[in-house]
Amino acid sequence: MSFFEKLTQRAHDVNSLLCVGLDPHKAELEEDSAEAAFKFCQRLIEETKDLVAAYKPNAAFFEAYGVEGWAALQRTLAAIPEEIPIVLDAKRGDIGSTSEAYASSAFQTLKCDSVTVSPYLGGDGLQPFLKDPSRGVWVLCKTSNPGSQDIQALQLPSGEPLYVHVAKVCCLQWAKEHSNAGLVVGATDVEAMRVIREAVPEPCHGGPSACESNSPASQHCHSSRKNRPTIILEHHTGLSKQEPCNP
Amino acid sequence: MSFFEKLTQRAHDVNSLLCVGLDPHKAELEEDSAEAAFKFCQRLIEETKDLVAAYKPNAAFFEAYGVEGWAALQRTLAAIPEEIPIVLDAKRGDIGSTSEAYASSAFQTLKCDSVTVSPYLGGDGLQPFLKDPSRGVWVLCKTSNPGSQDIQALQLPSGEPLYVHVAKVCCLQWAKEHSNAGLVVGATDVEAMRVIREAVPEPCHGGPSACESNSPASQHCHSSRKNRPTIILEHHTGLSKQEPCNP
Repeated sequence: MSFFEKLTQRAHDVNSLLCVGLDPHKAELEEDSAEAAFKFCQRLIEETKDLVAAYKPNAAFFEAYGVEGWAALQRTLAAIPEEIPIVLDAKRGDIGSTSEAYASSAFQTLKCDSVTVSPYLGGDGLQPFLKDPSRGVWVLCKTSNPGSQDIQALQLPSGEPLYVHVAKVCCLQWAKEHSNAGLVVGATDVEAMRVIREAVPEPCHGGPSACESNSPASQHCHSSRKNRPTIILEHHTGLSKQEPCNP
Repeated sequence: MSFFEKLTQRAHDVNSLLCVGLDPHKAELEEDSAEAAFKFCQRLIEETKDLVAAYKPNAAFFEAYGVEGWAALQRTLAAIPEEIPIVLDAKRGDIGSTSEAYASSAFQTLKCDSVTVSPYLGGDGLQPFLKDPSRGVWVLCKTSNPGSQDIQALQLPSGEPLYVHVAKVCCLQWAKEHSNAGLVVGATDVEAMRVIREAVPEPCHGGPSACESNSPASQHCHSSRKNRPTIILEHHTGLSKQEPCNP
């Protein structure tokens, strides 16, 4: 079963498009340690596991704790029930031989179902991630931060912004063989989401796009793609502060 | 002392611009293990430490071994003499709060002097790396792989390729405060290097640009910037196959 089939199945089973981010920000932990990061994620998983379509652990917050952090990441992944697909949020990407090692880390060592990657290196740098049809690859397209205007939104001579070009080249060329890519589109920008959907009407495996809930675009996600899974990337903020957690 | 001061000092002391990549590719190891990856790097360091301006360990090849790989990376870093500056080749980059964690990993946990990052997220995503004037930040500009044509070489309406825009915005805006960024420019593309140098004559701390040796551009690096340190990114291939190592 491919990642997107697993995601579709799970979304159907729980009737939910919610993806919960596992982002153990230092500021939110009981103490500044890898163990606290693991416990933070463990609790979040325990309280949301019946409701979520997917989990998205963010490698950075574990990596900051070095060896112990990496161990905490592996324990966190092991705490996620097998039927729930995992998006490793790692934003990796390099030349081919190095991306081979990153793909091996994400898919073999950490056994994640999918991973986020950066398109800046080009198609050959992403092939090591894309070559396994059973795994999903989320390509950064238009992110939610203000700085997404700096590079991603640059206009090309065709009149379209760079992020639309990235969406097209990713879905229609790089990931064409296995249709196993999704696009990361920050849902703070409804217009970007609309333009991308117009440019790539059948993006990668029938269209999972990433967007954040609690934003104007979440409604748009739900309404515009009734027959296709649209994953909602819900950052843990808000969720993790509920007691008990009640998303 | 800032990273670029440390690099300049070291380059002067050993009269060398050579940066040795520590890339323990699985195919080159005696066995497929984190321990073998460490031993591979340890030997390379032992045999080249009197000759190099810098070392560039590549996070991917350690990360592929999970927790043990991360431990091998930390042991490798500890085996590098203190006076030799380190470029952590990690190609990280995310939105601000996540980049904070990646910067903490590279600079505090791993204690590296500098790190490679991707510009796709924009300036705000790189500020957590750039805010410490004592550290260096190598921003991907024009890489050496064929896929660098896909995104990096796209022409903008001004007529210049995207990578020149990245060079300008990085050096003249994002890293303006501390002038602590360098540009990663694959030395397989002499023309790109020439154009970038024309566009940013005084890039970031007087101009360290990254290029590979054993390429047409390495001569160009040496000849065109006599008064400025230009780091030569020598991949370990070739070096690591010498017995004894004799770069």
